[in-house]
Amino acid sequence: MRILVKISYLGTQFMGFQIQQSGRTVQQQFEKILKRMHKRHVRIHPTSRTDRGVHALEQYFHFDTELNIAPEKWKYAMNSALPDDILVHDVTVVDDEFHCRYDCLGKSYRYKVYQTSQRDPFQSGLKTHVNVQLDLTKMNQAAQAFVGTHDFTGFCSQKTEVESKVRTLYQSEIIANSDGFDYVVTGSGFLYNMVRVLVAFLIEVGKGKRQPEDVPRLLESKDRNEVPFTAPAEGLYLEHVYLSEATLLEDFGNDITIHRKKSLQND
Amino acid sequence: MRILVKISYLGTQFMGFQIQQSGRTVQQQFEKILKRMHKRHVRIHPTSRTDRGVHALEQYFHFDTELNIAPEKWKYAMNSALPDDILVHDVTVVDDEFHCRYDCLGKSYRYKVYQTSQRDPFQSGLKTHVNVQLDLTKMNQAAQAFVGTHDFTGFCSQKTEVESKVRTLYQSEIIANSDGFDYVVTGSGFLYNMVRVLVAFLIEVGKGKRQPEDVPRLLESKDRNEVPFTAPAEGLYLEHVYLSEATLLEDFGNDITIHRKKSLQND
Repeated sequence: MRILVKISYLGTQFMGFQIQQSGRTVQQQFEKILKRMHKRHVRIHPTSRTDRGVHALEQYFHFDTELNIAPEKWKYAMNSALPDDILVHDVTVVDDEFHCRYDCLGKSYRYKVYQTSQRDPFQSGLKTHVNVQLDLTKMNQAAQAFVGTHDFTGFCSQKTEVESKVRTLYQSEIIANSDGFDYVVTGSGFLYNMVRVLVAFLIEVGKGKRQPEDVPRLLESKDRNEVPFTAPAEGLYLEHVYLSEATLLEDFGNDITIHRKKSLQND
Repeated sequence: MRILVKISYLGTQFMGFQIQQSGRTVQQQFEKILKRMHKRHVRIHPTSRTDRGVHALEQYFHFDTELNIAPEKWKYAMNSALPDDILVHDVTVVDDEFHCRYDCLGKSYRYKVYQTSQRDPFQSGLKTHVNVQLDLTKMNQAAQAFVGTHDFTGFCSQKTEVESKVRTLYQSEIIANSDGFDYVVTGSGFLYNMVRVLVAFLIEVGKGKRQPEDVPRLLESKDRNEVPFTAPAEGLYLEHVYLSEATLLEDFGNDITIHRKKSLQND
């Protein structure tokens, strides 16, 4: 039986999602609980392997089990054993063919920046501090210029090892708020460090060091040296995971291109 | 020259204030910076040695230096070298006789509790979760009953090694807010774990397991077995430090008893 689990977590005290040789990870927390329940190792498969310090407002994983436990009981069993910084929201039984990673049609990330003159230790790990004036209008113009299907070779880590670096962004916008702004981006998939490179570039636009008009040329050049910065992991939240075509079409319109990614890596 | 430094910090990722054999501490962060600047070890003396996981909205320490650096430059030098979860607010030159611990006339703590049905991973480390109904009115009545000068032997860790366990509380109240309550307590000084024991007791009152009328008898009995619980460190904030009689009298009236504590320990 395949079980789908919807979770959220505060990333601050995790070395990321994926299990490591040493260090606390989200995968490790769940596999420890499942091992105790199954008396054997049970592997979990997430939608997204978030990096060290990255948070998840919504994340999914699936695993296979022979245990006959009702979804509500799974949820209770896991929440009772989990540490305070992870929460299970929902547990459902899914088709054996369903795969959290390959059946993910899109994801939204939110990156939070606060702009006070002095940094605030109580935002540490939760928002990134920028203490210079930024032109949010220009940043939003630049953000919008990434919407659509593009080769993002110039906007991801050079360590990204995937065949195609073409991704489709359905949404890419700067949303101002009382103490700074959020960058919200939804796409068919994301390359390694892509959101953090986009944020760092948009901040350069906000400082006037880049212009919104530079975006098409930079996408075309596919040269990461043109876009050398990466924003810190703190401030980055996986916010929404699209596991059905219906919800993606509902949020972004019936004329969008849907990408199925049975073979993509690093997504 | 004696330098007084006003700081705040997020306690989540510290093993407390005081330097340890191993583990990240607030004292360690400052002494590392001061050692680099002085080319020798410089010890810092805090008002309060907060425990692992306890936060400080306001905390002070002092140190002695032969370096002739202006206060603003000290502040800048320290903030540039500190990690994101500590901030220096103010640096001042003080009299050589001034001592952060012995000249502290009072402290305020705030303990934050949120009361949603499900815990929130993004409150992890910041607020304590309670998911049962609590009678905040009765809790506040009980809280008020601690105001005044009492022997708090029954409301502190049995490991507390001080001559006198008599302390004066100037304020002790439950303040309801949108998602729970804060317990705010101001006193001449606090015994080891005292605030966390008081909070745990007040929660018992909120559940109806204790009554506000029990307080005088429990203070009288001086028996910690009567008050066996300690609330978790997360949720506890050192909020204000009174270094002058004037501010304490201003906040709590001219008729309060001021305690000078040149000889007290664990404060």
